[in-house]
Amino acid sequence: MLEVTNSIKKLVKSLSATKNRRELGLFVAEGTKSVGDIAKIFTPKMLIATADWFGENADAARVNCDRYVAKKSDLERMSCLSTATSVIGVFSIPDYDFDLKTCETELVVALDRVQDPGNLGTIIRLCDWFGVKHILASAETVDVWNPKVIQSTMGSIARVKVHYVNLVEVLSSTSAPVYGTFLEGESLYKAPLTETGVIVMGNEGKGISADVARLVTKKILIPTFPEGSTGAESLNVATATAITVSEFRRRQR
Amino acid sequence: MLEVTNSIKKLVKSLSATKNRRELGLFVAEGTKSVGDIAKIFTPKMLIATADWFGENADAARVNCDRYVAKKSDLERMSCLSTATSVIGVFSIPDYDFDLKTCETELVVALDRVQDPGNLGTIIRLCDWFGVKHILASAETVDVWNPKVIQSTMGSIARVKVHYVNLVEVLSSTSAPVYGTFLEGESLYKAPLTETGVIVMGNEGKGISADVARLVTKKILIPTFPEGSTGAESLNVATATAITVSEFRRRQR
Repeated sequence: MLEVTNSIKKLVKSLSATKNRRELGLFVAEGTKSVGDIAKIFTPKMLIATADWFGENADAARVNCDRYVAKKSDLERMSCLSTATSVIGVFSIPDYDFDLKTCETELVVALDRVQDPGNLGTIIRLCDWFGVKHILASAETVDVWNPKVIQSTMGSIARVKVHYVNLVEVLSSTSAPVYGTFLEGESLYKAPLTETGVIVMGNEGKGISADVARLVTKKILIPTFPEGSTGAESLNVATATAITVSEFRRRQR
Repeated sequence: MLEVTNSIKKLVKSLSATKNRRELGLFVAEGTKSVGDIAKIFTPKMLIATADWFGENADAARVNCDRYVAKKSDLERMSCLSTATSVIGVFSIPDYDFDLKTCETELVVALDRVQDPGNLGTIIRLCDWFGVKHILASAETVDVWNPKVIQSTMGSIARVKVHYVNLVEVLSSTSAPVYGTFLEGESLYKAPLTETGVIVMGNEGKGISADVARLVTKKILIPTFPEGSTGAESLNVATATAITVSEFRRRQR
Protein backbone atom coordinates (compact mmCIF):
# COMPACT_ATOMS: atom_id res chain seq x y z
CA MET A 1 0.00 0.00 0.00
CA LEU A 2 1.24 3.46 -0.92
CA GLU A 3 0.78 6.88 0.58
CA VAL A 4 -1.64 9.00 -1.42
CA THR A 5 0.20 11.55 -3.61
CA ASN A 6 -0.74 15.04 -4.71
CA SER A 7 -1.31 13.85 -8.26
CA ILE A 8 -3.80 11.22 -7.07
CA LYS A 9 -5.58 13.88 -4.99
CA LYS A 10 -5.75 16.12 -8.05
CA LEU A 11 -7.02 13.30 -10.24
CA VAL A 12 -9.87 12.44 -7.86
CA LYS A 13 -10.82 16.08 -7.44
CA SER A 14 -10.84 16.54 -11.24
CA LEU A 15 -13.40 13.73 -11.59
CA SER A 16 -16.12 15.92 -10.09
CA ALA A 17 -16.33 17.53 -13.58
CA THR A 18 -18.29 15.71 -16.31
CA LYS A 19 -15.75 16.75 -18.94
CA ASN A 20 -12.85 15.13 -17.07
CA ARG A 21 -14.82 11.97 -16.36
CA ARG A 22 -15.56 11.62 -20.08
CA GLU A 23 -11.97 12.28 -21.12
CA LEU A 24 -10.48 9.82 -18.63
CA GLY A 25 -13.33 7.29 -18.66
CA LEU A 26 -13.29 7.23 -14.85
CA PHE A 27 -15.78 7.89 -12.06
CA VAL A 28 -15.61 8.15 -8.28
CA ALA A 29 -17.67 6.48 -5.57
CA GLU A 30 -17.46 7.42 -1.88
CA GLY A 31 -18.31 5.58 1.31
CA THR A 32 -18.15 1.92 2.34
CA LYS A 33 -21.66 1.02 1.11
CA SER A 34 -21.33 2.60 -2.37
CA VAL A 35 -17.75 1.47 -2.97
CA GLY A 36 -18.52 -2.01 -1.65
CA ASP A 37 -21.60 -2.51 -3.83
CA ILE A 38 -19.93 -1.17 -6.96
CA ALA A 39 -16.76 -3.21 -6.35
CA LYS A 40 -18.90 -6.36 -6.41
CA ILE A 41 -19.65 -5.68 -10.10
CA PHE A 42 -16.82 -3.47 -11.40
CA THR A 43 -13.17 -3.85 -10.44
CA PRO A 44 -11.87 -0.56 -9.03
CA LYS A 45 -8.87 1.15 -10.60
CA MET A 46 -7.82 2.43 -7.20
CA LEU A 47 -9.00 2.60 -3.62
CA ILE A 48 -8.01 5.50 -1.39
CA ALA A 49 -8.86 5.05 2.27
CA THR A 50 -7.70 5.54 5.84
CA ALA A 51 -5.43 2.87 7.31
CA ASP A 52 -8.29 2.01 9.71
CA TRP A 53 -10.67 1.43 6.79
CA PHE A 54 -8.26 -0.98 5.10
CA GLY A 55 -7.90 -2.74 8.46
CA GLU A 56 -11.67 -3.15 8.86
CA ASN A 57 -12.33 -4.12 5.23
CA ALA A 58 -10.00 -7.04 4.64
CA ASP A 59 -11.83 -8.01 1.41
CA ALA A 60 -11.01 -4.67 -0.15
CA ALA A 61 -7.36 -5.16 0.71
CA ARG A 62 -7.34 -8.25 -1.51
CA VAL A 63 -8.87 -6.54 -4.58
CA ASN A 64 -6.42 -6.38 -7.45
CA CYS A 65 -6.04 -2.59 -7.78
CA ASP A 66 -3.87 0.26 -6.60
CA ARG A 67 -4.41 1.03 -2.93
CA TYR A 68 -3.49 4.33 -1.28
CA VAL A 69 -3.58 5.22 2.39
CA ALA A 70 -4.79 8.73 3.13
CA LYS A 71 -5.54 10.81 6.20
CA LYS A 72 -9.20 11.50 6.98
CA SER A 73 -8.52 15.18 6.25
CA ASP A 74 -7.11 14.32 2.80
CA LEU A 75 -10.23 12.28 1.99
CA GLU A 76 -12.44 15.15 3.07
CA ARG A 77 -10.61 17.50 0.73
CA MET A 78 -10.86 15.03 -2.15
CA SER A 79 -14.56 14.37 -1.55
CA CYS A 80 -17.24 15.86 -3.77
CA LEU A 81 -19.92 15.26 -1.14
CA SER A 82 -20.88 17.04 2.04
CA THR A 83 -20.67 13.92 4.20
CA ALA A 84 -17.30 12.75 5.51
CA THR A 85 -15.98 9.51 4.06
CA SER A 86 -13.32 6.92 4.95
CA VAL A 87 -12.95 5.50 1.45
CA ILE A 88 -12.98 6.71 -2.13
CA GLY A 89 -12.98 4.30 -5.07
CA VAL A 90 -12.03 5.20 -8.65
CA PHE A 91 -13.67 2.99 -11.31
CA SER A 92 -13.73 2.77 -15.10
CA ILE A 93 -16.95 4.00 -16.69
CA PRO A 94 -18.49 0.89 -18.25
CA ASP A 95 -19.50 0.84 -21.89
CA TYR A 96 -23.04 -0.51 -22.19
CA ASP A 97 -24.82 -1.50 -25.36
CA PHE A 98 -28.56 -1.01 -25.55
CA ASP A 99 -30.60 -3.47 -27.56
CA LEU A 100 -33.80 -1.83 -28.84
CA LYS A 101 -35.64 -5.14 -28.39
CA THR A 102 -35.34 -4.67 -24.62
CA CYS A 103 -38.32 -2.28 -24.79
CA GLU A 104 -40.44 -5.17 -26.06
CA THR A 105 -39.25 -7.74 -23.53
CA GLU A 106 -38.85 -5.69 -20.33
CA LEU A 107 -40.16 -2.62 -18.53
CA VAL A 108 -37.79 0.28 -19.30
CA VAL A 109 -37.76 3.79 -17.78
CA ALA A 110 -36.80 6.72 -20.05
CA LEU A 111 -35.74 10.10 -18.65
CA ASP A 112 -36.20 13.21 -20.75
CA ARG A 113 -33.81 15.92 -19.44
CA VAL A 114 -33.93 15.09 -15.70
CA GLN A 115 -31.54 17.63 -14.17
CA ASP A 116 -31.18 16.98 -10.46
CA PRO A 117 -28.49 14.44 -9.45
CA GLY A 118 -30.49 13.41 -6.36
CA ASN A 119 -33.56 12.70 -8.50
CA LEU A 120 -31.59 10.57 -10.97
CA GLY A 121 -29.96 8.65 -8.11
CA THR A 122 -33.31 8.05 -6.40
CA ILE A 123 -34.82 6.83 -9.69
CA ILE A 124 -31.95 4.37 -10.23
CA ARG A 125 -32.41 3.07 -6.67
CA LEU A 126 -36.15 2.52 -7.07
CA CYS A 127 -35.66 0.91 -10.50
CA ASP A 128 -33.28 -1.53 -8.81
CA TRP A 129 -35.96 -2.25 -6.16
CA PHE A 130 -38.59 -2.90 -8.82
CA GLY A 131 -36.38 -4.93 -11.16
CA VAL A 132 -36.11 -2.30 -13.91
CA LYS A 133 -32.66 -3.04 -15.32
CA HIS A 134 -32.38 -0.42 -18.07
CA ILE A 135 -32.90 3.34 -18.00
CA LEU A 136 -32.77 5.39 -21.19
CA ALA A 137 -31.64 8.98 -20.71
CA SER A 138 -31.72 11.86 -23.19
CA ALA A 139 -28.37 13.56 -23.78
CA GLU A 140 -29.55 16.55 -21.70
CA THR A 141 -30.11 14.37 -18.62
CA VAL A 142 -27.64 14.90 -15.76
CA ASP A 143 -24.54 12.70 -16.01
CA VAL A 144 -25.04 9.42 -14.17
CA TRP A 145 -21.34 9.26 -13.19
CA ASN A 146 -21.68 12.50 -11.19
CA PRO A 147 -20.58 11.68 -7.60
CA LYS A 148 -23.89 12.98 -6.19
CA VAL A 149 -25.85 10.60 -8.44
CA ILE A 150 -23.59 7.68 -7.48
CA GLN A 151 -24.05 8.51 -3.80
CA SER A 152 -27.84 8.71 -3.93
CA THR A 153 -28.19 5.39 -5.76
CA MET A 154 -26.88 3.69 -2.58
CA GLY A 155 -25.06 1.09 -4.64
CA SER A 156 -27.86 0.45 -7.15
CA ILE A 157 -25.74 2.00 -9.92
CA ALA A 158 -23.94 -1.35 -9.99
CA ARG A 159 -27.14 -3.18 -11.02
CA VAL A 160 -29.10 -0.73 -13.21
CA LYS A 161 -27.72 0.32 -16.61
CA VAL A 162 -28.23 3.92 -17.74
CA HIS A 163 -27.97 4.41 -21.51
CA TYR A 164 -27.58 7.91 -22.99
CA VAL A 165 -29.44 7.84 -26.27
CA ASN A 166 -31.31 10.00 -28.73
CA LEU A 167 -34.71 9.44 -27.10
CA VAL A 168 -36.68 10.59 -30.14
CA GLU A 169 -34.82 8.11 -32.34
CA VAL A 170 -35.24 5.19 -29.93
CA LEU A 171 -38.92 5.86 -29.25
CA SER A 172 -39.62 6.29 -32.98
CA SER A 173 -37.98 2.94 -33.71
CA THR A 174 -39.70 0.75 -31.14
CA SER A 175 -43.05 -0.97 -31.51
CA ALA A 176 -43.36 -1.19 -27.69
CA PRO A 177 -46.02 0.92 -25.93
CA VAL A 178 -44.66 4.25 -24.68
CA TYR A 179 -46.26 5.58 -21.48
CA GLY A 180 -45.96 9.14 -20.22
CA THR A 181 -47.69 11.18 -17.50
CA PHE A 182 -49.85 14.08 -18.70
CA LEU A 183 -52.59 16.12 -17.04
CA GLU A 184 -55.05 14.91 -19.68
CA GLY A 185 -53.99 11.26 -19.25
CA GLU A 186 -56.08 8.32 -18.09
CA SER A 187 -55.92 7.41 -14.38
CA LEU A 188 -52.86 5.27 -13.67
CA TYR A 189 -55.04 3.12 -11.43
CA LYS A 190 -57.55 2.33 -14.17
CA ALA A 191 -55.57 2.45 -17.43
CA PRO A 192 -54.59 -0.88 -18.98
CA LEU A 193 -50.86 -1.39 -18.32
CA THR A 194 -48.65 -3.83 -20.22
CA GLU A 195 -45.87 -5.88 -18.64
CA THR A 196 -43.26 -4.49 -21.05
CA GLY A 197 -42.71 -1.12 -22.68
CA VAL A 198 -41.25 2.29 -21.91
CA ILE A 199 -42.30 4.74 -19.17
CA VAL A 200 -41.12 8.28 -20.03
CA MET A 201 -40.56 10.81 -17.23
CA GLY A 202 -39.84 14.47 -17.96
CA ASN A 203 -37.78 17.40 -16.73
CA GLU A 204 -38.37 18.72 -13.17
CA GLY A 205 -39.86 22.04 -14.25
CA LYS A 206 -40.89 21.52 -17.85
CA GLY A 207 -42.08 17.92 -18.02
CA ILE A 208 -41.78 15.90 -21.22
CA SER A 209 -40.52 17.83 -24.26
CA ALA A 210 -42.84 18.25 -27.27
CA ASP A 211 -40.72 16.01 -29.54
CA VAL A 212 -40.85 13.16 -27.06
CA ALA A 213 -44.51 13.76 -26.08
CA ARG A 214 -45.51 13.11 -29.70
CA LEU A 215 -44.13 9.58 -29.40
CA VAL A 216 -46.05 8.72 -26.21
CA THR A 217 -48.73 6.19 -27.17
CA LYS A 218 -50.43 5.86 -23.73
CA LYS A 219 -51.02 9.03 -21.71
CA ILE A 220 -51.53 8.39 -18.02
CA LEU A 221 -52.12 10.54 -14.94
CA ILE A 222 -51.42 9.97 -11.25
CA PRO A 223 -54.77 11.12 -9.81
CA THR A 224 -54.87 13.59 -6.93
CA PHE A 225 -57.05 12.79 -3.92
CA PRO A 226 -59.93 13.44 -3.74
CA GLU A 227 -59.88 12.98 -7.53
CA GLY A 228 -59.68 16.30 -9.33
CA SER A 229 -58.62 18.33 -6.25
CA THR A 230 -56.08 21.03 -6.95
CA GLY A 231 -53.46 21.76 -4.36
CA ALA A 232 -50.01 20.62 -5.38
CA GLU A 233 -49.50 21.36 -9.07
CA SER A 234 -47.11 18.50 -9.62
CA LEU A 235 -45.13 15.72 -8.00
CA ASN A 236 -41.35 15.49 -7.79
CA VAL A 237 -40.12 13.42 -10.78
CA ALA A 238 -38.64 10.65 -8.61
CA THR A 239 -41.90 10.48 -6.62
CA ALA A 240 -43.94 10.19 -9.83
CA THR A 241 -41.60 7.51 -11.21
CA ALA A 242 -41.91 5.52 -7.98
CA ILE A 243 -45.71 5.58 -7.97
CA THR A 244 -45.92 4.69 -11.67
CA VAL A 245 -43.40 1.83 -11.63
CA SER A 246 -44.94 0.45 -8.41
CA GLU A 247 -48.39 0.32 -10.09
CA PHE A 248 -46.98 -1.46 -13.17
CA ARG A 249 -45.33 -4.04 -10.93
CA ARG A 250 -48.44 -4.47 -8.75
CA ARG A 251 -50.47 -5.41 -11.83
CA GLN A 252 -47.87 -7.98 -12.86
CA ARG A 253 -48.34 -10.08 -9.72
CA MET B 1 -41.19 50.83 -0.58
CA LEU B 2 -37.90 51.08 1.27
CA GLU B 3 -34.34 50.18 0.41
CA VAL B 4 -33.24 46.99 2.15
CA THR B 5 -31.02 47.73 5.18
CA ASN B 6 -28.12 45.83 6.68
CA SER B 7 -30.22 44.86 9.68
CA ILE B 8 -32.87 43.30 7.42
CA LYS B 9 -30.16 41.42 5.53
CA LYS B 10 -28.78 40.14 8.84
CA LEU B 11 -32.24 39.14 10.05
CA VAL B 12 -32.97 37.07 6.92
CA LYS B 13 -29.55 35.43 7.02
CA SER B 14 -30.04 34.56 10.71
CA LEU B 15 -33.26 32.67 9.87
CA SER B 16 -31.27 29.89 8.23
CA ALA B 17 -30.62 28.64 11.80
CA THR B 18 -33.37 26.64 13.55
CA LYS B 19 -32.60 28.32 16.89
CA ASN B 20 -33.15 31.81 15.49
CA ARG B 21 -36.35 30.80 13.71
CA ARG B 22 -37.72 29.43 16.99
CA GLU B 23 -36.73 32.51 18.99
CA LEU B 24 -38.19 34.96 16.51
CA GLY B 25 -41.11 32.81 15.32
CA LEU B 26 -40.24 33.60 11.70
CA PHE B 27 -39.36 31.63 8.59
CA VAL B 28 -38.15 32.47 5.10
CA ALA B 29 -39.45 31.42 1.68
CA GLU B 30 -37.61 32.14 -1.58
CA GLY B 31 -38.74 32.38 -5.18
CA THR B 32 -41.95 33.54 -6.84
CA LYS B 33 -43.72 30.16 -6.70
CA SER B 34 -43.02 29.44 -3.01
CA VAL B 35 -43.61 32.99 -1.80
CA GLY B 36 -46.75 33.30 -3.91
CA ASP B 37 -48.30 30.03 -2.70
CA ILE B 38 -47.49 30.72 0.95
CA ALA B 39 -48.72 34.31 0.73
CA LYS B 40 -52.12 32.99 -0.36
CA ILE B 41 -52.49 31.38 3.09
CA PHE B 42 -50.21 33.33 5.46
CA THR B 43 -49.71 37.09 5.34
CA PRO B 44 -46.00 37.87 4.97
CA LYS B 45 -44.23 40.03 7.54
CA MET B 46 -41.98 41.43 4.82
CA LEU B 47 -41.16 40.97 1.17
CA ILE B 48 -37.67 41.70 -0.13
CA ALA B 49 -37.36 41.70 -3.91
CA THR B 50 -35.82 43.39 -6.92
CA ALA B 51 -37.60 46.45 -8.30
CA ASP B 52 -38.34 44.38 -11.43
CA TRP B 53 -40.02 41.67 -9.37
CA PHE B 54 -42.31 44.19 -7.65
CA GLY B 55 -43.11 45.59 -11.09
CA GLU B 56 -44.05 42.19 -12.47
CA ASN B 57 -45.98 41.07 -9.38
CA ALA B 58 -48.49 43.83 -8.83
CA ASP B 59 -50.54 41.66 -6.42
CA ALA B 60 -47.60 41.37 -4.06
CA ALA B 61 -47.18 45.11 -4.08
CA ARG B 62 -50.68 45.41 -2.59
CA VAL B 63 -50.08 42.95 0.28
CA ASN B 64 -50.21 44.68 3.65
CA CYS B 65 -46.61 44.12 4.79
CA ASP B 66 -43.22 45.80 4.78
CA ARG B 67 -41.68 45.84 1.32
CA TYR B 68 -37.97 46.29 0.61
CA VAL B 69 -36.25 46.73 -2.70
CA ALA B 70 -32.92 44.93 -3.01
CA LYS B 71 -30.33 44.34 -5.67
CA LYS B 72 -30.11 40.86 -7.18
CA SER B 73 -26.66 40.52 -5.59
CA ASP B 74 -28.08 41.39 -2.14
CA LEU B 75 -30.77 38.71 -2.54
CA GLU B 76 -28.15 36.16 -3.52
CA ARG B 77 -26.15 36.92 -0.40
CA MET B 78 -29.26 36.67 1.80
CA SER B 79 -30.40 33.40 0.19
CA CYS B 80 -29.98 30.07 1.94
CA LEU B 81 -30.39 28.18 -1.34
CA SER B 82 -28.08 27.51 -4.24
CA THR B 83 -30.51 28.83 -6.86
CA ALA B 84 -30.72 32.56 -7.52
CA THR B 85 -33.94 34.26 -6.46
CA SER B 86 -35.70 37.55 -7.16
CA VAL B 87 -37.86 37.54 -4.03
CA ILE B 88 -37.57 36.54 -0.40
CA GLY B 89 -40.59 36.50 1.92
CA VAL B 90 -40.44 36.49 5.72
CA PHE B 91 -43.49 34.89 7.40
CA SER B 92 -44.63 34.15 10.96
CA ILE B 93 -44.40 30.48 11.93
CA PRO B 94 -48.02 29.40 12.43
CA ASP B 95 -49.12 27.72 15.63
CA TYR B 96 -51.09 24.57 14.77
CA ASP B 97 -53.12 22.46 17.17
CA PHE B 98 -53.34 18.76 16.53
CA ASP B 99 -56.53 16.95 17.47
CA LEU B 100 -55.84 13.30 18.24
CA LYS B 101 -59.22 12.37 16.72
CA THR B 102 -57.79 13.30 13.29
CA CYS B 103 -56.05 9.89 13.20
CA GLU B 104 -59.49 8.26 13.33
CA THR B 105 -61.13 10.46 10.71
CA GLU B 106 -58.33 11.01 8.16
CA LEU B 107 -55.20 9.43 6.74
CA VAL B 108 -52.20 10.90 8.63
CA VAL B 109 -48.48 10.44 7.88
CA ALA B 110 -46.06 10.25 10.84
CA LEU B 111 -42.31 10.79 10.44
CA ASP B 112 -39.92 9.24 12.93
CA ARG B 113 -36.60 11.17 12.81
CA VAL B 114 -36.52 11.97 9.06
CA GLN B 115 -33.30 14.00 8.71
CA ASP B 116 -32.99 15.21 5.13
CA PRO B 117 -34.68 18.55 4.32
CA GLY B 118 -35.26 17.48 0.70
CA ASN B 119 -36.99 14.29 1.85
CA LEU B 120 -39.28 16.16 4.26
CA GLY B 121 -40.14 18.70 1.55
CA THR B 122 -40.88 15.98 -1.01
CA ILE B 123 -43.10 14.16 1.51
CA ILE B 124 -45.08 17.35 2.23
CA ARG B 125 -45.54 17.90 -1.51
CA LEU B 126 -46.82 14.37 -2.15
CA CYS B 127 -49.09 14.53 0.91
CA ASP B 128 -50.60 17.68 -0.61
CA TRP B 129 -51.13 15.80 -3.91
CA PHE B 130 -52.84 12.91 -2.14
CA GLY B 131 -54.97 15.02 0.20
CA VAL B 132 -53.07 14.14 3.40
CA LYS B 133 -53.52 17.31 5.44
CA HIS B 134 -51.63 16.47 8.62
CA ILE B 135 -48.12 15.14 9.18
CA LEU B 136 -46.92 14.17 12.64
CA ALA B 137 -43.18 14.55 13.18
CA SER B 138 -41.04 13.33 16.08
CA ALA B 139 -39.00 16.03 17.80
CA GLU B 140 -35.82 14.66 16.13
CA THR B 141 -37.25 15.21 12.63
CA VAL B 142 -35.62 18.02 10.61
CA ASP B 143 -37.26 21.43 11.17
CA VAL B 144 -40.03 22.03 8.65
CA TRP B 145 -39.30 25.78 8.59
CA ASN B 146 -35.78 25.13 7.25
CA PRO B 147 -35.50 27.07 3.94
CA LYS B 148 -34.49 23.90 2.06
CA VAL B 149 -37.64 22.13 3.24
CA ILE B 150 -39.81 25.12 2.30
CA GLN B 151 -38.20 25.23 -1.14
CA SER B 152 -38.71 21.55 -1.90
CA THR B 153 -42.38 21.59 -0.89
CA MET B 154 -43.00 23.83 -3.95
CA GLY B 155 -45.67 25.77 -2.05
CA SER B 156 -47.36 22.73 -0.47
CA ILE B 157 -46.19 23.88 2.97
CA ALA B 158 -49.10 26.33 2.82
CA ARG B 159 -51.64 23.48 2.66
CA VAL B 160 -50.19 20.62 4.75
CA LYS B 161 -49.78 21.03 8.52
CA VAL B 162 -46.70 19.51 10.17
CA HIS B 163 -47.09 18.92 13.93
CA TYR B 164 -44.04 18.21 16.11
CA VAL B 165 -45.23 15.80 18.77
CA ASN B 166 -44.08 13.04 21.07
CA LEU B 167 -44.81 10.25 18.57
CA VAL B 168 -44.80 7.51 21.22
CA GLU B 169 -47.36 9.41 23.27
CA VAL B 170 -49.64 10.13 20.30
CA LEU B 171 -49.48 6.60 18.89
CA SER B 172 -50.10 5.10 22.36
CA SER B 173 -53.19 7.25 22.79
CA THR B 174 -54.95 6.63 19.49
CA SER B 175 -57.25 3.74 18.70
CA ALA B 176 -56.61 4.25 14.96
CA PRO B 177 -54.63 1.60 13.06
CA VAL B 178 -50.91 2.39 12.85
CA TYR B 179 -49.13 1.20 9.68
CA GLY B 180 -45.37 0.95 9.26
CA THR B 181 -43.07 -0.63 6.65
CA PHE B 182 -40.98 -3.58 7.85
CA LEU B 183 -39.10 -6.32 6.00
CA GLU B 184 -41.32 -8.93 7.68
CA GLY B 185 -44.52 -7.01 6.82
CA GLU B 186 -47.40 -8.12 4.64
CA SER B 187 -47.34 -7.05 0.97
CA LEU B 188 -48.68 -3.48 0.60
CA TYR B 189 -50.55 -4.64 -2.48
CA LYS B 190 -52.42 -7.41 -0.63
CA ALA B 191 -52.74 -6.19 2.97
CA PRO B 192 -56.15 -4.81 4.00
CA LEU B 193 -55.82 -1.01 4.19
CA THR B 194 -58.22 1.27 6.05
CA GLU B 195 -59.32 4.69 4.82
CA THR B 196 -58.14 6.38 8.01
CA GLY B 197 -55.21 5.85 10.37
CA VAL B 198 -51.51 6.64 10.67
CA ILE B 199 -48.70 5.63 8.28
CA VAL B 200 -45.32 5.79 10.08
CA MET B 201 -42.13 6.31 8.06
CA GLY B 202 -38.69 6.05 9.65
CA ASN B 203 -35.23 7.59 9.57
CA GLU B 204 -33.20 7.43 6.31
CA GLY B 205 -30.56 5.05 7.63
CA LYS B 206 -32.11 3.48 10.70
CA GLY B 207 -35.79 3.11 9.86
CA ILE B 208 -38.46 3.22 12.56
CA SER B 209 -37.12 3.38 16.15
CA ALA B 210 -37.86 0.48 18.51
CA ASP B 211 -40.17 2.55 20.74
CA VAL B 212 -42.32 3.56 17.79
CA ALA B 213 -42.14 0.14 16.10
CA ARG B 214 -43.81 -1.39 19.17
CA LEU B 215 -46.87 0.77 18.50
CA VAL B 216 -47.25 -0.23 14.84
CA THR B 217 -50.36 -2.42 14.60
CA LYS B 218 -50.13 -3.29 10.87
CA LYS B 219 -46.73 -4.16 9.43
CA ILE B 220 -46.53 -3.76 5.67
CA LEU B 221 -43.83 -4.21 3.04
CA ILE B 222 -43.36 -2.69 -0.42
CA PRO B 223 -42.48 -5.84 -2.38
CA THR B 224 -39.45 -5.93 -4.64
CA PHE B 225 -39.87 -7.25 -8.18
CA PRO B 226 -39.72 -10.10 -8.93
CA GLU B 227 -41.05 -10.71 -5.41
CA GLY B 228 -38.29 -11.63 -3.01
CA SER B 229 -35.43 -10.45 -5.26
CA THR B 230 -32.57 -8.75 -3.45
CA GLY B 231 -30.80 -5.93 -5.12
CA ALA B 232 -31.52 -2.56 -3.55
CA GLU B 233 -31.64 -2.96 0.23
CA SER B 234 -34.08 -0.16 0.77
CA LEU B 235 -35.99 2.67 -0.85
CA ASN B 236 -35.50 6.36 -0.17
CA VAL B 237 -37.99 7.41 2.56
CA ALA B 238 -39.85 9.88 0.31
CA THR B 239 -40.11 7.20 -2.41
CA ALA B 240 -41.51 4.68 0.09
CA THR B 241 -43.99 7.24 1.45
CA ALA B 242 -45.17 8.02 -2.09
CA ILE B 243 -45.77 4.37 -3.02
CA THR B 244 -47.55 3.65 0.27
CA VAL B 245 -49.83 6.72 0.28
CA SER B 246 -50.64 6.18 -3.42
CA GLU B 247 -51.76 2.60 -2.70
CA PHE B 248 -53.97 3.72 0.23
CA ARG B 249 -55.61 6.31 -2.00
CA ARG B 250 -56.02 3.88 -4.92
CA ARG B 251 -57.99 1.56 -2.67
CA GLN B 252 -60.27 4.40 -1.57
CA ARG B 253 -61.57 5.02 -5.08
